[in-house]
Amino acid sequence: DLAFEDKLDRLAEVAVKVGLGLRAGQELIMSAPMEALPLVRLITEHAYKAGALLVTTFYADDPSTLARFAYAPDASFDYAPKWLQDGIAEGFRSGAARLAIAGANPALLAKEDPAKVARANVAASKAGKPAMELITRHEINWTIVAYATPAWAKLVFPNDPEDIAVAKLWDAIFVSSRIDADDPVVEWQQHGERLKKRVDLLNAKRFSALHFKGPGTDLTVGLADDHLWAGGGTTAGNGVYCQPNIPTEECFTTPHKDRVDGTVKASKPLSHQGTLIENIAVRFEGGKIVEATATAGEDVLNRLISTDDGARRLGEVALVPHSSPIAQSGVLFWNTLFDENAASHIALGQAYSTCLIGGEKMSAEELAKRGANASLIHVDWMIGSGAMDVDGIATDGTAEPLMRKGEWV
Amino acid sequence: DLAFEDKLDRLAEVAVKVGLGLRAGQELIMSAPMEALPLVRLITEHAYKAGALLVTTFYADDPSTLARFAYAPDASFDYAPKWLQDGIAEGFRSGAARLAIAGANPALLAKEDPAKVARANVAASKAGKPAMELITRHEINWTIVAYATPAWAKLVFPNDPEDIAVAKLWDAIFVSSRIDADDPVVEWQQHGERLKKRVDLLNAKRFSALHFKGPGTDLTVGLADDHLWAGGGTTAGNGVYCQPNIPTEECFTTPHKDRVDGTVKASKPLSHQGTLIENIAVRFEGGKIVEATATAGEDVLNRLISTDDGARRLGEVALVPHSSPIAQSGVLFWNTLFDENAASHIALGQAYSTCLIGGEKMSAEELAKRGANASLIHVDWMIGSGAMDVDGIATDGTAEPLMRKGEWV
Ligand SMILES: [Zn+2]
Ligand SMILES: [Zn+2]
Ligand SMILES: [Zn+2]
Ligand SMILES: [Zn+2]
Repeated sequence: DLAFEDKLDRLAEVAVKVGLGLRAGQELIMSAPMEALPLVRLITEHAYKAGALLVTTFYADDPSTLARFAYAPDASFDYAPKWLQDGIAEGFRSGAARLAIAGANPALLAKEDPAKVARANVAASKAGKPAMELITRHEINWTIVAYATPAWAKLVFPNDPEDIAVAKLWDAIFVSSRIDADDPVVEWQQHGERLKKRVDLLNAKRFSALHFKGPGTDLTVGLADDHLWAGGGTTAGNGVYCQPNIPTEECFTTPHKDRVDGTVKASKPLSHQGTLIENIAVRFEGGKIVEATATAGEDVLNRLISTDDGARRLGEVALVPHSSPIAQSGVLFWNTLFDENAASHIALGQAYSTCLIGGEKMSAEELAKRGANASLIHVDWMIGSGAMDVDGIATDGTAEPLMRKGEWV
Repeated sequence: DLAFEDKLDRLAEVAVKVGLGLRAGQELIMSAPMEALPLVRLITEHAYKAGALLVTTFYADDPSTLARFAYAPDASFDYAPKWLQDGIAEGFRSGAARLAIAGANPALLAKEDPAKVARANVAASKAGKPAMELITRHEINWTIVAYATPAWAKLVFPNDPEDIAVAKLWDAIFVSSRIDADDPVVEWQQHGERLKKRVDLLNAKRFSALHFKGPGTDLTVGLADDHLWAGGGTTAGNGVYCQPNIPTEECFTTPHKDRVDGTVKASKPLSHQGTLIENIAVRFEGGKIVEATATAGEDVLNRLISTDDGARRLGEVALVPHSSPIAQSGVLFWNTLFDENAASHIALGQAYSTCLIGGEKMSAEELAKRGANASLIHVDWMIGSGAMDVDGIATDGTAEPLMRKGEWV
């Protein structure tokens, strides 16, 4: 068994070689929670060894963020530093890759005024739009990896002392991120090929809709015209092949924003900015949520879907088998990077233009015409389980079984 | 006696209220060594309490910097992130104040290839020029304060164990920064007024030159046409009154780049990027260094003055009494923020346009016409001591004693 330091170093290597596919001479822009400094240093080293021109890291410090919520004037919460986000977008345009380290305390702002939190998020989304669009359109190579911060670990394993919780979360991260394999870089190549084969099959079908049937769920999700399934690696607009999420288990595509109908019940709690929204049940009509309930966090859910018009519609539908290592771990990670790879899911809000044929080059109007949703938010929530059946619906209405009891048929 | 935490909190308060004079609703852009995180957090808190719109901090991490020098491709050392520096300049233009925390390990790059270090500095200076000009022209309010990092403390007090060295350096910082006074904010207001009175006297004189006479020194420093003495606080272009350096003891102005003649011997070693340059002796002719020697670090000195044409000429001349608390501490800080306030000094390189009447609004050509020097570097070195006499030379050639044995007459 490898020592922790060796596993962390392997995670850094996988992040640079598999996640980013960093090209020699390419710049790297990284963002990280302050606690992730040991991983930042290892990634920085691997990036320079891979020929990085320069690595620039932006750190988020929780006490500094809390000081803002405690003392800043009200106007602060409608503000975000556009000068910085525009600078980062310019860095991407001039060739930089992007790596984000996830793991910030999901509950950091749980006790703050939800209205202030929401306003700050809207301001950040608006200021960050030019940079974020280069990422979601896959114009640059990018990836996300995770770091087990103590605050996150304590949320995931509340009954363990902090050091045990951190160790357990690291184990779950290393297993999910396929770091334990003999050669994790080779393992990731093979995993990517398996996902690609599944994606190619789904794309060949040209389904017009998916039908989900399970406990509390009877949902038809129409797919966008010219929708494209994606999963695993992708060749970015700058020509670099990357794996945007470490881990990743999903095949996903763009639903049609006006063609979602029926009822759906979440199969797992949704952790949103530190609040657990439990037992979500939603009814769609003509693509739009017309009824939304939850047994806990219902106010947060309703605030979320009221962010803008697109927040009540779907931007993603994804299929994940119940046998995925993240599902099998049984851990609720309170983090989309992991939880969305534990079960089939749908996402409220912004669609990925890369999940439409030629979508990267389309205007907002052209994307909307094909049914792709637009919103400031993109929030995934789990609907799959070992009791979920999924059919693909052809244009002539015939149903083809895709998943039975949560597994690919 | 105050506890350390209270002194650190006072330093943060002085930085925000005196150093920046931060205005309610103003954004703050901070840069800091990673080790200075405790001071960053206190400054962030005081800034928000003073009404800061948002505080954004950029951290420098020494191991990440060393990884670059160890592993990055050669092209890295001619590169700097213009996208980031342009972003920061835009932040300044849109109203942000700037705070830098000094204290990074001065010897960090001492063992790296000096050519690579020099190239990286030139690239950083070029990319940072738009942002730096807004600072040196005082178009925004800004300040620098110090944090006693372990690496810096060990360099200053090499014979002490690390914890003692850090404690000694903190004591020296707190005393120099006038934190021990009953009310440091009031103490700083009074200190600023004393400096301003001295500056007003010097400006009223309209000297054409200064004459320095001491052991190994017989130097005439012509002053730029329309030169302006400065010291202590300044009203920035955005209308905010700030104290750009904490501590500060100097009255300084712009020499004439073509009118410096004679010989001068440094009174203290010059620490430049981790190298101590000792016993510098230099001869000027027509403003330009024509001979430069040192008993240690002479190669670094010669590389420094070869950076560009302006690196051989003076951009600043400053008068500091030998009774300054920094001089009296007897500590060589290896840091200009402190060392330049220990003795009268001159600086090679870039002049401050704010030290010319109307200079902030002048073009590069207009500045040069009045004698203000231009360069990518600005390096101060100490020439004053308890044995230095300084005369002011009027336009008719008559000499007026300004300092005798290092003290104001
Ligand atoms: Zn997904
Ligand atoms: Zn998603
Ligand atoms: Zn000076
Ligand atoms: Zn200076």
